[in-house]
Amino acid sequence: MSSYDQLHAHFGRIGRVREALEILHWDMAAMMPTASAAGRGEQLATLHGIEHGMMCDDRLADWLDAAADEPLDDWSRANLREMRREWVHATAVPRDLVEALTRAGTKCETTWRKARPDNDFARIEPLLTEVLGLVRQKAQAIGEALGTSPYDALLDLYEPGGSTARIDAVFEQVASFLPELTSQVIEHQAKRGPAIAPDGPFPVDQQRALGLKLMTSMGFDFTHGRLDVSHHPFCGGSPDDVRITTRYDTADFASSLMGVIHETGHALYEMGLPVDWRSQPVGGALGMSMHESQSLLMEMQACRSRPFLEYVAPIAQEVFGGEVAAWSADNFCRLYTKVERSLIRVDADEVTYPAHVILRYRLERALLAGDLEIADLPGAWNEAMAELVGVVPPDNRDGCMQDIHWMDGTFGYFPTYTLGAMTAAQLFDAATTADPEILPSIGRGEFAPLLGWLRENVHRWGSFYSTDELLTKATGRALDADVFRAHLERRYLSD
Amino acid sequence: MSSYDQLHAHFGRIGRVREALEILHWDMAAMMPTASAAGRGEQLATLHGIEHGMMCDDRLADWLDAAADEPLDDWSRANLREMRREWVHATAVPRDLVEALTRAGTKCETTWRKARPDNDFARIEPLLTEVLGLVRQKAQAIGEALGTSPYDALLDLYEPGGSTARIDAVFEQVASFLPELTSQVIEHQAKRGPAIAPDGPFPVDQQRALGLKLMTSMGFDFTHGRLDVSHHPFCGGSPDDVRITTRYDTADFASSLMGVIHETGHALYEMGLPVDWRSQPVGGALGMSMHESQSLLMEMQACRSRPFLEYVAPIAQEVFGGEVAAWSADNFCRLYTKVERSLIRVDADEVTYPAHVILRYRLERALLAGDLEIADLPGAWNEAMAELVGVVPPDNRDGCMQDIHWMDGTFGYFPTYTLGAMTAAQLFDAATTADPEILPSIGRGEFAPLLGWLRENVHRWGSFYSTDELLTKATGRALDADVFRAHLERRYLSD
Repeated sequence: MSSYDQLHAHFGRIGRVREALEILHWDMAAMMPTASAAGRGEQLATLHGIEHGMMCDDRLADWLDAAADEPLDDWSRANLREMRREWVHATAVPRDLVEALTRAGTKCETTWRKARPDNDFARIEPLLTEVLGLVRQKAQAIGEALGTSPYDALLDLYEPGGSTARIDAVFEQVASFLPELTSQVIEHQAKRGPAIAPDGPFPVDQQRALGLKLMTSMGFDFTHGRLDVSHHPFCGGSPDDVRITTRYDTADFASSLMGVIHETGHALYEMGLPVDWRSQPVGGALGMSMHESQSLLMEMQACRSRPFLEYVAPIAQEVFGGEVAAWSADNFCRLYTKVERSLIRVDADEVTYPAHVILRYRLERALLAGDLEIADLPGAWNEAMAELVGVVPPDNRDGCMQDIHWMDGTFGYFPTYTLGAMTAAQLFDAATTADPEILPSIGRGEFAPLLGWLRENVHRWGSFYSTDELLTKATGRALDADVFRAHLERRYLSD
Repeated sequence: MSSYDQLHAHFGRIGRVREALEILHWDMAAMMPTASAAGRGEQLATLHGIEHGMMCDDRLADWLDAAADEPLDDWSRANLREMRREWVHATAVPRDLVEALTRAGTKCETTWRKARPDNDFARIEPLLTEVLGLVRQKAQAIGEALGTSPYDALLDLYEPGGSTARIDAVFEQVASFLPELTSQVIEHQAKRGPAIAPDGPFPVDQQRALGLKLMTSMGFDFTHGRLDVSHHPFCGGSPDDVRITTRYDTADFASSLMGVIHETGHALYEMGLPVDWRSQPVGGALGMSMHESQSLLMEMQACRSRPFLEYVAPIAQEVFGGEVAAWSADNFCRLYTKVERSLIRVDADEVTYPAHVILRYRLERALLAGDLEIADLPGAWNEAMAELVGVVPPDNRDGCMQDIHWMDGTFGYFPTYTLGAMTAAQLFDAATTADPEILPSIGRGEFAPLLGWLRENVHRWGSFYSTDELLTKATGRALDADVFRAHLERRYLSD
């Protein structure tokens, strides 16, 4: 057996352990009884420890070195590159630290699920402080191995090759036009009169049926995936078994519907990854900005377009009934492209969303650097909200307690949302230019032409190229905030 | 750290991997999309391989020897005994064989789920032949390590300390009175006129609600468990997270209801295991005869008793409605204690059930010994049915393809059902004698007195005692077929 073949088998087994972990995480969020959390935390910690042990196997260093001199085809070569990248990350962090962080994260996340509805920040403060302390140690360790700052080290976990220098530049560009643009859009929309929210209640069964119908139209393969309910919607599982979740609000069908479309975008990326490279590093998705681009391309670019809203408005009316005016395509456009300064990131419109992200990016950098402690987070959050979004949360539930990310130890992830939004705009622009039938098809509920372009230009490549290479190959240029800006101006100022 | 402490930590981690496997198995049966089976097979094979590798860790032999000389309390001493027992089993089987068997079993089981409805034995024959070949290798290997026959070696996996010599004796005793008793009962019941089956359809939602209500009455803790649907009902998960399943027949509410009661019996045993010994070998349940005794004690002893049927008949009538005669307690007694010669083991009554088990026990011994091949199984099955049960299946779907056990490589398990039925009779007899309030309480839907006795005399002991020791401690004698016979005569011939 060649060294590369040894690595292939070994990483295949690691991949299977990760897939098992994905299902256990999904189960914890969507299925597990409430009092089983402690045991699940131990199970996750044990499996994460095992996976980490496999990544730190003494034989890997030799195999990686020897494989570099073996004759390999291009995909195997790329696979070897991804193996080494993962190995550097894994060996940088001591096993005890990995297990302690998993345990602390599970505890904090579980407590947060109960403390957030109670607006009880004091209850999570010590747990989140413990998580942050462990995350700082982890970032320090990876940073030393990669020769980067602690924050760039964490960022590299979610956005390989990403750096604060690059993000600062792009975010600065966005920040330079966004405040003015936001004010212009709000002023522009004020002239066109208020949107009418369709009257609920919207029964959960009907919402679910509509979500399933759209998932099917979009190309979700239900022999390889499921839709369930969880507190915080996500896309989990693995390419052959994709688990997406939503939550239903009987007063507002659109929040779940748009959430389902968003997670379906993630799911389609997973389902389209190269079958021949299942469970191997190169067969996985690229960093989170590309993943988020696939969800936002569906949610924001395709499904808030006028053609799609014209298609879906009468379908929604047929499902839910109610007065005609609220269900007109014009009203849907007003309603679902409405821009306002608001509190909750996941409910924010696409114009103000980047402000929510830039806020979190700044705060998590400060938290990681030790310039901000958890005890001071609520105050810092509210100050930043006032400055960046223009509104101040009345409580922590709708302030610094709204996101799951920090609770389970995920720092360095937030910027990928806005990088993803920009990537989505650029990919959709390229796709609809390359194939002028894509947009009219979406207006008939037919996603096959769009999905075909994405399969060909993004999904099937897995991690063969870097994010920058793939975007350049697919769109002819590197990430460019001007395309995002042009999209926002076209959608929000031109009608 | 003492050697025992090393073992305690190591087996704790093994326990957590097993708990993860339990959830993955539950998910496969209750949640997983159809086309994800191949990937799940790889995940299960990988985790089983990891667990097996941990059991075969080179350090265990030294730790086990050294711990034997360390000062230990009685529970730790019993834990050490169980660790060694598991270690002997695990080290007897090569890792490749464990993984091959998991993979072949998953494939065969998955195919069986589709082939059984199609009555397509030819489709599973080569897969089941492969499974059997691997099981024979496994039995041979364990038998050599334990110094037993291959069949006794497999039996020891499910019934520690059990042996064919002992089972042959007990089964012979049962077989000596059962044919005559069965004829007597059928003749006796013929005199009392036919039972009236309540008219369906019985909506699934209402069946589920009634099942949940009874589970609650019986003491099932829903903060530590769930009820879901699967093709073949089972109790899975772990003591802190018990997952039971059922299947609903809209034409017959009792099949699911009695199934739910049965699995709840298993679940209550798991939930009552000693909290201080979670994930440790001594903290687990005893062999499967004791486990099955807990389900059958609830299903057969408690819930087919006249007091319980008098309690549940009006509740079922209220839930489902319908004509009065079908919902009388007298009719329920006729219906749910009806004895007949039938095809399907899981639907068989408690009088003829042992015949179904003895049939499987004989066939699987012949299969394992090489005296019977899979190709000849349908014929051998039908012959044995004619001899032991007195009816012949018209097809393989309701013949040799009806059970999941052999499909996933489980041989040596079947006898535990009848050992469990006998144990249940003996425990229930002891419990109701020790506390005369138990039976009247059940007649009011109150299971606390019964559950209290079981918690005290069975559940809390985990695997501290052997099955024989615990039964003797709880009932004053070893397993005695006469108690089972007395129960059958009392219930089926005395009214």
